Amino acid sequence: MEMELPELKFDGEGLIPAIVQDHENGEVLMLAYMDREALRRTLSSGRTWFWSRSRREYWCKGETSGHRQYVRRIRYDCDGDALLVEVLQVGPACHTGKRSCFFNEIRGARTDLSPESQ
Amino acid sequence: MEMELPELKFDGEGLIPAIVQDHENGEVLMLAYMDREALRRTLSSGRTWFWSRSRREYWCKGETSGHRQYVRRIRYDCDGDALLVEVLQVGPACHTGKRSCFFNEIRGARTDLSPESQ
Repeated sequence: MEMELPELKFDGEGLIPAIVQDHENGEVLMLAYMDREALRRTLSSGRTWFWSRSRREYWCKGETSGHRQYVRRIRYDCDGDALLVEVLQVGPACHTGKRSCFFNEIRGARTDLSPESQ
Repeated sequence: MEMELPELKFDGEGLIPAIVQDHENGEVLMLAYMDREALRRTLSSGRTWFWSRSRREYWCKGETSGHRQYVRRIRYDCDGDALLVEVLQVGPACHTGKRSCFFNEIRGARTDLSPESQ
């Protein structure tokens, strides 16, 4: 399938960060990187493809684990340098078995401010 | 305020991507970059600070526009190379006036797959 990609800005390594979000409940599941080819495969296959910076190879999420991501919508930001991929997530997104990769919290942040307090 | 940061992985430029999410409805608002100092300022001030790669300077979100972000929770992912910052967002997060920076959609993606179809 040929497709015109919007004017996206890939970085010096040809990559763009892709935020993956559960399309049902809005939970942010993970962040990974795509290049043009990974994005092309994602668009045409309907499943998420990424470029692994450490392994230097393409990977299709869930191909071995079965924890697949089926694309529901892909958006890009105002600068064209980040993607937001909404998916139907099968099972956990994280290799640790957690639903989301973002399960660790930084403690000690100030969280008591509001518009009224400033 | 002194604070032990978890073992985060900053990239070759000393940066880590920070996804900013509306803590009330889960909407992904923007993606920007922090270095250690921007994260330190974010944690201690309770408002989001980033490093602008284009302007080569720190910026506090909403400092000039008034569209501030008050930190509610900060998490990091299993690899320690991405942040998820939940905020109370005042007004629009995007400089265009949109609530979220992710208002453009990539058309033509395959979105009809489901676990049952494979």
